[in-house]
Amino acid sequence: MISSEAASQLDFEDNGSKIILFVIDGVGGLPLPEKSPLTKRGLTELETAHTPNLDKLAAKGITGMSVPVAPGVAPGSGVAHLALFGYDPLRYAIGRGAIAAYGVGLDMDKGDMAVRINFAGYSPTGAVLDRRAGRLATEKNIELCKLLREIKLPGVEIVIQTVLDYRSVAIFRGEGLHPHLSDSDPQATGENVFPHEVKALDPKGEHAGEIANAFIKAANEILREGAKGIADLPDGQHIGILTRGYADRPEIPQMQDLYKLKRLGAIATYPDYRGVARLVGMDIVYTGHELVGEFDALDAVFQDYDFIFFHVKKPDSAGEDGNFSEKVRILEELDELVPRLEALNPDVIVIAGDHSTPATYKAHSWHPVPFALVSEWCRPDSVKGFSESECEHGALGQFPAAEVMLYALGHARRIAKFGA
Amino acid sequence: MISSEAASQLDFEDNGSKIILFVIDGVGGLPLPEKSPLTKRGLTELETAHTPNLDKLAAKGITGMSVPVAPGVAPGSGVAHLALFGYDPLRYAIGRGAIAAYGVGLDMDKGDMAVRINFAGYSPTGAVLDRRAGRLATEKNIELCKLLREIKLPGVEIVIQTVLDYRSVAIFRGEGLHPHLSDSDPQATGENVFPHEVKALDPKGEHAGEIANAFIKAANEILREGAKGIADLPDGQHIGILTRGYADRPEIPQMQDLYKLKRLGAIATYPDYRGVARLVGMDIVYTGHELVGEFDALDAVFQDYDFIFFHVKKPDSAGEDGNFSEKVRILEELDELVPRLEALNPDVIVIAGDHSTPATYKAHSWHPVPFALVSEWCRPDSVKGFSESECEHGALGQFPAAEVMLYALGHARRIAKFGA
Repeated sequence: MISSEAASQLDFEDNGSKIILFVIDGVGGLPLPEKSPLTKRGLTELETAHTPNLDKLAAKGITGMSVPVAPGVAPGSGVAHLALFGYDPLRYAIGRGAIAAYGVGLDMDKGDMAVRINFAGYSPTGAVLDRRAGRLATEKNIELCKLLREIKLPGVEIVIQTVLDYRSVAIFRGEGLHPHLSDSDPQATGENVFPHEVKALDPKGEHAGEIANAFIKAANEILREGAKGIADLPDGQHIGILTRGYADRPEIPQMQDLYKLKRLGAIATYPDYRGVARLVGMDIVYTGHELVGEFDALDAVFQDYDFIFFHVKKPDSAGEDGNFSEKVRILEELDELVPRLEALNPDVIVIAGDHSTPATYKAHSWHPVPFALVSEWCRPDSVKGFSESECEHGALGQFPAAEVMLYALGHARRIAKFGA
Repeated sequence: MISSEAASQLDFEDNGSKIILFVIDGVGGLPLPEKSPLTKRGLTELETAHTPNLDKLAAKGITGMSVPVAPGVAPGSGVAHLALFGYDPLRYAIGRGAIAAYGVGLDMDKGDMAVRINFAGYSPTGAVLDRRAGRLATEKNIELCKLLREIKLPGVEIVIQTVLDYRSVAIFRGEGLHPHLSDSDPQATGENVFPHEVKALDPKGEHAGEIANAFIKAANEILREGAKGIADLPDGQHIGILTRGYADRPEIPQMQDLYKLKRLGAIATYPDYRGVARLVGMDIVYTGHELVGEFDALDAVFQDYDFIFFHVKKPDSAGEDGNFSEKVRILEELDELVPRLEALNPDVIVIAGDHSTPATYKAHSWHPVPFALVSEWCRPDSVKGFSESECEHGALGQFPAAEVMLYALGHARRIAKFGA
């Protein structure tokens, strides 16, 4: 039973109890080859890391393994978080462009079309040599966006905004923009890899496709000369753009309406996670880029919210980089801060991940994710530590991530007795 | 999430990886009464059998218990296999007649009606004394089918084909044959047990019912004298037919289209399993009737296929016969051949059963079925052996058999990342 589906049939009680949903991005892992006496196989990142505080929470709570979307399916960040917020991830797919737009604080009107832009390094012949333009710095991105704002297309208003590093976002506002379009980003690089033309994926999208291609053409013309002196690329390369995830304004029920949670806050350093959170109705709490800053922000606003989504990004990044020891180090670093969650004394603490990002796999994966929930009203199971090999023996077994909200709300005594 | 339902929303990647789905028919069992120190209850067939090679695969892989259709529901062979192939077994029921037709290599057109025929032993008064005509030999069945081919009915073309032993199949081709019909087979025997008249289960089926009854009458008339000298029945008995499972051409998506698996092969000694496999788009690989022959066939064709369904029938037959020690012996015999699966080095090996057939129960049962999956990318759990009492502690827990394909495809890295 998916939360958002169940929620429409349930009554919720706004009893003032408080829930923290602590999401450790990409927390699940895979074992290294060397066998360990602890697990009779190799150890995963979590099993290697010394995490006494997470282990203590697992020991006090109930545990299990959450399945992000479906067996065998590795999720993108957006859908994986929607699942944790209780939305059926196969029903509420949200386009990348919309997540990016909401992540930087932009709003979309009905009929708007948003798209994610990457600044990229092109060869003189127009081949894509670097999809991230040397991981362009945010300050330079801001300068390049100023150039893009000079582009005028008839009948269309264009909003351009820097996201982070090499990433920006554009919103197109005009008549008849049906964003069912393919990406220009070829998702590959090389002397023979050229950006794709944007194509309408159904006939209604033809006008939007023309606008998108006209914008890309104009952007590449402006940037080819204009970006010189702003971005430093290797000799012979010049800056252009790639576009991904044309999207309209998502129609998604708000968490306030689904669960009678009046005040929802999100603490996340990365724009995309703020975007998903805003899309489902959360306030974005100001925080810096560092882990400690996130915990400081939590202390500052905890009393103002019923529900706080608290997101930690770095384990996923280390996993994507294939850096096992760095992922272990980050897990140990955040474990030291975990007592600050408990010190706030929320009614429910949920420790979850959106998906696994095993360092050996270097990508989001489908593997189930360790999960723990602590509350005065949970029935603790026999699991004593927070890891794959321990939580897989938890009382919750393997369960869909989209059930997490029901567990959280139930243990917060926010779900009314169902039926006579 | 059922594979075929999820599949319509997922993208698949044809990356050339190879999957073997090894199905041990009826592998699950029930314990004997005598308590064992190993399980603190009696031992099942799998727990009794010495199966070091299956145990080794379980130890290297992830394990769990698959639920064929729904809790408490014992499945027929057809639906149980459809579930393993990823089809919702409550949605894609396929009639016995169609499975039999496809199993012997016949194809059906839209509008055709197929039905399974048993040659049976009748008393002089027309009572059903033996539903299998003394387990008639296939050679004699072939002779009897020649007689049935003499039957002519107005406006209907009839195709008759031997299946195996006492079983044949007929396809009726003509206008207005809606095969929503009851069986003539009373599924019982005795001096007072007579075959049922075939009845239309809705008004549209009336013409088909008339055709079916006319065919049965003609068949029994021809066989009563004509079969003398072909089939040797006890004194006083004569040969007739019983019909089961009137079915139209199944409309079922093909596995190629669902999963982007280009080349699917099936290795199975029994016609009905070949039938289900053909219905979902697999090639039938030539093989003999013996276990070793199946492994030889696998060696011969492994390079030609992305996905191979490898079916072993005998554990089910021993279970149906109530022969516990024979089921144990067969499991040990096939265990010795299991290293030949590994030697082929497929990307994913799945060890599954379609259902349980406990020797003490002498029938297909609803009990969950031990399951193991081995792949470079699986996260091994703590289970060390392939049996009911071990796999029930596996990381996958108890899960629907219709999720097996998602697990297999995910570990073969054939499912694209889902969502932004």
